[in-house]
Amino acid sequence: MNRNEGVKIVTIGGGSSYTPELMNGFISRYDRLPVREIWLVDIEDGREKLEIVGAMAQRMWDKAGLPVKVHCTLDRREALKGADFVTTQFRVGLLYARIKDERIPFSHGMLGQETNGAGGIFKAFRTIPVILDIVKDMKELCPDAWLINFTNPSGMVTESIIRYGGWKKTMGLCNVPIGCMLNEPALIDKTLDELVFRFAGIDHFHWHRVFDLDGNEVTDQLIEAILEGKKDDGTPANIHEVKWFPEQLRAIGMIPCGYHRYYYLQSDMLADGLSEFNGKGTRAQQVKEVEDQLFELYKDPNLAEMPDLLKKRGGAHYSDVATESIAAIYTDANEHIVCSTVNNGAIPDLPSDAVVQLSTYVGAAGPAAVSFGPLPTAERGWLQCMWNMQRLVEEAAVTGDYGTALQAFALNPQIPSGAEAKKVLDEMLVAHAKYLPQFADKITELKAAGVKPSDPVVLELMEQGL
Amino acid sequence: MNRNEGVKIVTIGGGSSYTPELMNGFISRYDRLPVREIWLVDIEDGREKLEIVGAMAQRMWDKAGLPVKVHCTLDRREALKGADFVTTQFRVGLLYARIKDERIPFSHGMLGQETNGAGGIFKAFRTIPVILDIVKDMKELCPDAWLINFTNPSGMVTESIIRYGGWKKTMGLCNVPIGCMLNEPALIDKTLDELVFRFAGIDHFHWHRVFDLDGNEVTDQLIEAILEGKKDDGTPANIHEVKWFPEQLRAIGMIPCGYHRYYYLQSDMLADGLSEFNGKGTRAQQVKEVEDQLFELYKDPNLAEMPDLLKKRGGAHYSDVATESIAAIYTDANEHIVCSTVNNGAIPDLPSDAVVQLSTYVGAAGPAAVSFGPLPTAERGWLQCMWNMQRLVEEAAVTGDYGTALQAFALNPQIPSGAEAKKVLDEMLVAHAKYLPQFADKITELKAAGVKPSDPVVLELMEQGL
Amino acid sequence: MNRNEGVKIVTIGGGSSYTPELMNGFISRYDRLPVREIWLVDIEDGREKLEIVGAMAQRMWDKAGLPVKVHCTLDRREALKGADFVTTQFRVGLLYARIKDERIPFSHGMLGQETNGAGGIFKAFRTIPVILDIVKDMKELCPDAWLINFTNPSGMVTESIIRYGGWKKTMGLCNVPIGCMLNEPALIDKTLDELVFRFAGIDHFHWHRVFDLDGNEVTDQLIEAILEGKKDDGTPANIHEVKWFPEQLRAIGMIPCGYHRYYYLQSDMLADGLSEFNGKGTRAQQVKEVEDQLFELYKDPNLAEMPDLLKKRGGAHYSDVATESIAAIYTDANEHIVCSTVNNGAIPDLPSDAVVQLSTYVGAAGPAAVSFGPLPTAERGWLQCMWNMQRLVEEAAVTGDYGTALQAFALNPQIPSGAEAKKVLDEMLVAHAKYLPQFADKITELKAAGVKPSDPVVLELMEQGL
Amino acid sequence: MNRNEGVKIVTIGGGSSYTPELMNGFISRYDRLPVREIWLVDIEDGREKLEIVGAMAQRMWDKAGLPVKVHCTLDRREALKGADFVTTQFRVGLLYARIKDERIPFSHGMLGQETNGAGGIFKAFRTIPVILDIVKDMKELCPDAWLINFTNPSGMVTESIIRYGGWKKTMGLCNVPIGCMLNEPALIDKTLDELVFRFAGIDHFHWHRVFDLDGNEVTDQLIEAILEGKKDDGTPANIHEVKWFPEQLRAIGMIPCGYHRYYYLQSDMLADGLSEFNGKGTRAQQVKEVEDQLFELYKDPNLAEMPDLLKKRGGAHYSDVATESIAAIYTDANEHIVCSTVNNGAIPDLPSDAVVQLSTYVGAAGPAAVSFGPLPTAERGWLQCMWNMQRLVEEAAVTGDYGTALQAFALNPQIPSGAEAKKVLDEMLVAHAKYLPQFADKITELKAAGVKPSDPVVLELMEQGL
Repeated sequence: MNRNEGVKIVTIGGGSSYTPELMNGFISRYDRLPVREIWLVDIEDGREKLEIVGAMAQRMWDKAGLPVKVHCTLDRREALKGADFVTTQFRVGLLYARIKDERIPFSHGMLGQETNGAGGIFKAFRTIPVILDIVKDMKELCPDAWLINFTNPSGMVTESIIRYGGWKKTMGLCNVPIGCMLNEPALIDKTLDELVFRFAGIDHFHWHRVFDLDGNEVTDQLIEAILEGKKDDGTPANIHEVKWFPEQLRAIGMIPCGYHRYYYLQSDMLADGLSEFNGKGTRAQQVKEVEDQLFELYKDPNLAEMPDLLKKRGGAHYSDVATESIAAIYTDANEHIVCSTVNNGAIPDLPSDAVVQLSTYVGAAGPAAVSFGPLPTAERGWLQCMWNMQRLVEEAAVTGDYGTALQAFALNPQIPSGAEAKKVLDEMLVAHAKYLPQFADKITELKAAGVKPSDPVVLELMEQGL
Repeated sequence: MNRNEGVKIVTIGGGSSYTPELMNGFISRYDRLPVREIWLVDIEDGREKLEIVGAMAQRMWDKAGLPVKVHCTLDRREALKGADFVTTQFRVGLLYARIKDERIPFSHGMLGQETNGAGGIFKAFRTIPVILDIVKDMKELCPDAWLINFTNPSGMVTESIIRYGGWKKTMGLCNVPIGCMLNEPALIDKTLDELVFRFAGIDHFHWHRVFDLDGNEVTDQLIEAILEGKKDDGTPANIHEVKWFPEQLRAIGMIPCGYHRYYYLQSDMLADGLSEFNGKGTRAQQVKEVEDQLFELYKDPNLAEMPDLLKKRGGAHYSDVATESIAAIYTDANEHIVCSTVNNGAIPDLPSDAVVQLSTYVGAAGPAAVSFGPLPTAERGWLQCMWNMQRLVEEAAVTGDYGTALQAFALNPQIPSGAEAKKVLDEMLVAHAKYLPQFADKITELKAAGVKPSDPVVLELMEQGL
Repeated sequence: MNRNEGVKIVTIGGGSSYTPELMNGFISRYDRLPVREIWLVDIEDGREKLEIVGAMAQRMWDKAGLPVKVHCTLDRREALKGADFVTTQFRVGLLYARIKDERIPFSHGMLGQETNGAGGIFKAFRTIPVILDIVKDMKELCPDAWLINFTNPSGMVTESIIRYGGWKKTMGLCNVPIGCMLNEPALIDKTLDELVFRFAGIDHFHWHRVFDLDGNEVTDQLIEAILEGKKDDGTPANIHEVKWFPEQLRAIGMIPCGYHRYYYLQSDMLADGLSEFNGKGTRAQQVKEVEDQLFELYKDPNLAEMPDLLKKRGGAHYSDVATESIAAIYTDANEHIVCSTVNNGAIPDLPSDAVVQLSTYVGAAGPAAVSFGPLPTAERGWLQCMWNMQRLVEEAAVTGDYGTALQAFALNPQIPSGAEAKKVLDEMLVAHAKYLPQFADKITELKAAGVKPSDPVVLELMEQGL
Repeated sequence: MNRNEGVKIVTIGGGSSYTPELMNGFISRYDRLPVREIWLVDIEDGREKLEIVGAMAQRMWDKAGLPVKVHCTLDRREALKGADFVTTQFRVGLLYARIKDERIPFSHGMLGQETNGAGGIFKAFRTIPVILDIVKDMKELCPDAWLINFTNPSGMVTESIIRYGGWKKTMGLCNVPIGCMLNEPALIDKTLDELVFRFAGIDHFHWHRVFDLDGNEVTDQLIEAILEGKKDDGTPANIHEVKWFPEQLRAIGMIPCGYHRYYYLQSDMLADGLSEFNGKGTRAQQVKEVEDQLFELYKDPNLAEMPDLLKKRGGAHYSDVATESIAAIYTDANEHIVCSTVNNGAIPDLPSDAVVQLSTYVGAAGPAAVSFGPLPTAERGWLQCMWNMQRLVEEAAVTGDYGTALQAFALNPQIPSGAEAKKVLDEMLVAHAKYLPQFADKITELKAAGVKPSDPVVLELMEQGL
């Protein structure tokens, strides 16, 4: 990194509605992180959005009075040349794909959860081949750059970058931990800097323990405060707040993340999801509406600030964590950031080469994982189940092996295995055919056998070629 | 063991309908295993059955012309004095309890599987305190005896004997592996002694690989033969033969046990179970009928042979494995027997002190576990999930902690977690109150809150004090 | 901790010649760490030194113009009441004991190395019972305090505090890593804040890797610079600089600590040590002289600054690391400090509950161990050997079991096992009898058999009752 | 294997003086193991011996009246075609090499132990490239054969076969365990079939525990009997019977193998060895004499029985174990045999893919390793040290990397590290140059620097081109 010239940032999926938040993050950290230029990269299908959001981004920098040039391009290789940091926030198949990810499982009475459920599995199938392609380019064009991934499922994608791509200088981000850290202190009348957090698990499936400044654990106090439920405990906006079982939370002795409701309270989360599916539309459909509104706002040539509406988008703080991570690497700040990185023993219940999500101190050498030690019995069982599921998904994403995909579906606790689940798998393969070249043979076979989603919304998207 | 005097066998739960099969096993091995006396022990509620089956057992020995005395007693301590081998086949709460174990979950749309499902969890809750009591007596009355457990859930019970009871000279048996070994060779035109089997997993949740006499693996051939489905592959009679997904079986590369259908094909097994629940009655109800018929047969003073009907009972070969194990220990035969014993590293994916079920060579020092090595990804995930679930059940059984019981329910892949599952847990606690002293406080609380099973069959049993 | 009142520090072994350095550390950190009072605790035998050094310490605070009161006491319990931080720097048997630790092995042609060799083993035998006594007092008198141990062998002592004492709020310090970090950067024309260090191992037996601010590893460059040997590489003053084998250092791929010479270059270190033993006296004897001079200086009522001579003492930077650690805990600074703490998986080649020495980020919840991942083959073997040796020493120290002590001696790579080594063990037991109550029976037996050290210096010390 | 035609055996190193014992083993097992033909393979340098011993072998079969043809050949590939079992007993460089292996270290005051000491390391360097060549031939010429290795260092060679050769159907044999099992029972007035043995460790570095027929451990009784020392405890003839320290043996709680004296009683074993070195010659020199006498005997055309002298050779029972293993595989006998095979978790203190030596049950699928569970502290440390040392040797043998060889030397507990040890390493490289093509560059460099052994016996051998 040439520290005299300022930093070159490349953002893959730059046409995303998140980009203004990302700009905001860089602008507010400019004193620590002297950005020189930002390259927003997208694909042909996203050209229009890229132009809108690129112009908006440039306006933001200009308003801040900072000499940063925002480049918009469809030429990824051009952008990557000499990059210092590459961030990834792309969504293969756009929100249309997520709509399919959610609706097909629901149409068979199952959850299509987009992080580690059936939806997340297919997001991984679509994303992993693309990210490996990006890594290939980076090896050639910017071999010293850091790859800051916040494309979901962030854990699986980051593990694939390291394991299959062989790229070490990376970290995977997620906004769930920062949500917990921002909201929980108030529950016990503390501020964030009066508490020490220790997270461990995998992406969207982690627990944490909390200590006060005297080094004493206050996790139990927090659990009681969460059970009392007086204030916001940081559960992401997109998760229905089904109430935890107090006896279970106390037995855990750690604070689960909001997404654990899909595992500890599965039938209730399913009921909630089905009611949306049958009513106002699934989460993706809701997000799509917000996103359309956002782009309308971004078009306004007078708008040079991140609009409030973006906070409703669901991914709040993602960009904050991303830009903070980059600043921490750049300034060797050894800052506490929760991210996906190589286990190296930190969670001894998983293999050393697993990618896990946990407390790290991020500095110039990247994230230093804080060793957490063995988990309690139940959480060990959950985590071992989920991480092996994650591995199966990655393997299926890379090999296109249908049996492995079936195994991932069967092991996934959100999916009740059996003939119905296999139908979901098959319909999803067909629905996403365009983005799943690795499964091409199997999809051909399925189509020949007449497999086709039955959900009308999905069918309509397919007919539109989306 | 005084080898000059012959062996003293004590069978706890001696009034079981299985006892004649057990006698058969001992009679046919008498040349290797010189039994001196057999003590059948039961409790007051089982006195009548004990007398019937005890008389039948004596007739069997007499007919065989062997000088073995069968003692029937309700005094367990009297029986245990100086025992060489203690076998356990008791069922706390009799088949009535299993009827509740199955019907309550079904009445909420869930499986109540008696091995490792909700039913098995409650069987463990009822059984573990009793077996620990037996161990306490044994320490005092027959400290050198072997405890051969075939009370289900055999894995959890055996692990509790070792971990909480501190009793090392034990092994846990199950009839599933022997079923596989007896039926599978024919599928590829072999005999049992032309194949080498290697099992690994936990009780009712294991896989196996198979080799021929040239040392080459033939597992794949067997998988194809099973998928062709021409002949009986050893799946226990009580499991509906929902068809495996060929792609999944091939991806596994090992042969799962029949019970894996509850995990790989969950929704289909549930549908089957619900249809029985709503129709001819659950498995326990069917077995109850067979058992009643068996006792009618046993009453016949002319009957001195195991009736064919017993084979329909579902536990075929249990006694065969049990008596063979005892003979192998007695004669230091180093025989290949699949049983539950301490892992000691044989399955490196689980802790060394876990109790697992796998291939062992049984001799005078007990079962020598054959190290299996690491499992493939998916099976590692499944096994780690299930064994930790097993540990939670044992811990809840010993401590009576409700939160731990909830955790076991949540982690159990057969049970969709949430409010409905909690209802099942609560109703089962209430329904089995009589046999769950460790949960007494919680049950009092639940009863006060009006928790009560809704299934009429269960309610009727409860009204009858069963 | 009541942050309004200032911090109460208690130093066990307060009469040590190191105390002025410690005071210096506190004085220079007073803006971050508002000390209220310091209690220097010692035993009757150290009363005179305590008074000298205590007066000197008070003069230092006074000269700095800071309102801190230094208390000198022989009443440990009085001192511990309400302590916030307890530091330990005591030496059971004083330097006389170390003289025996070194001379007895040398008199049999072996190394008596005071960290992890025969000397260190006996230092552990003398120290561990005392530290466990201190922990007992702390549980009663200052249950929330942090115990900052820098009594050697720091790793064994810290592990005993945690494992046998059950005290979690502790960390073990050592000045070797800070020595490396201060000296190595210049070897490659960098400054300390331009490099990121990652240490792993156990106390006085660790390796490290180094990265630059671009996140690229520069360990190999450092190795070459060390092999060129142009500048000081941070090897402690007390270690003779026998040259590393270049091929070995390159094969390691990590930088060993200076003490590794006792393992990688054993015969040469022995030759050096024997030449001192036969010449100017062993290291302890040299240190003793420096120490006597130091106390002469401290007596000067005009001296209110740490004298330069102290830097020659061999333990330079110990107090720096100690006071920096306390400040980092107090201010939740998340500072990179290398210390002994619970492994928790950070080095997957050792058990999770092992105490290891490695890079941590120290904040209010204590040291957060950075997971290092698996070591290369040779270093794994060395570390596993040494940590198990450490465990044996601790166990023998606690139980007084002679067989375990023999096992520790045999496994220790510095000690050639056999009859001669057993003689060393026996003579050392006899020579240190006064401080080894746990071995009393064995020592009585040895004395009865006429076991007695043959080294005249040791004999003289014994005759003087030292 | 075509079981109708009889078995084809190939013995690499067929010209060895052991061959008659091997023939004896096959002859006495002919009823179980119908041998068809035996191919004795050797190299040009061994032609004369091969012819002598081949003729002797044929006479033995003829005398036994069995229709087995013994083929002698220098064409290894011809011999391997269609082999069912390949046994390896070759010695690269003959006993001359072992003389160098022992004398060079002794000439520098160190042990040159031929199993796992400096001698063993160089035997591995010479042997591993050759065995990997044999494996390459076998893949082509007899891909279904079993490779029964009893070339030392048997553990390292077997691990290399599996790890670097990728050949699974193998087992490594050693005569030490059988020696223990044959001699120990009498120490406690038992016979072999009244005891159950459980071995664990690595080749020539293992411990065992023993149980009686009641399943109770009798290890402690055996330890006391060994300490009393009334009878032969099975220590191999070539190990000087330095007495164990009773307290250490009791602390171990397991029975070490005779070779553990080199680790537990190092200085005494060294003294013994040096006295032989300076007196009647090292073990290799003694063996050489016996061997010369043996070949004189074998030349006698009337001799058709194994001569008694062979038993003095030191490798007694090797061939017994080898032929018994082959018979156990052929008949699927599940016999208890201690051998080197893949760990697979059996010793959880070592990686799953390590090759270890332990109790197995040998049948058609090869050795089934009995899981032993975690070792006690000291033995865990020893074993982890030694196995990692083993791995370094293998790696250096395959790569020819000098730094790795130095690391192996340093970690080896028999070798005091330092400049002197490096001299030993260097002289041995030069002395064995002919058989170490992988180290050619380094050896050239050493020769250029004038490195040359100083021991006159070694020098003479080198001058003779041996």
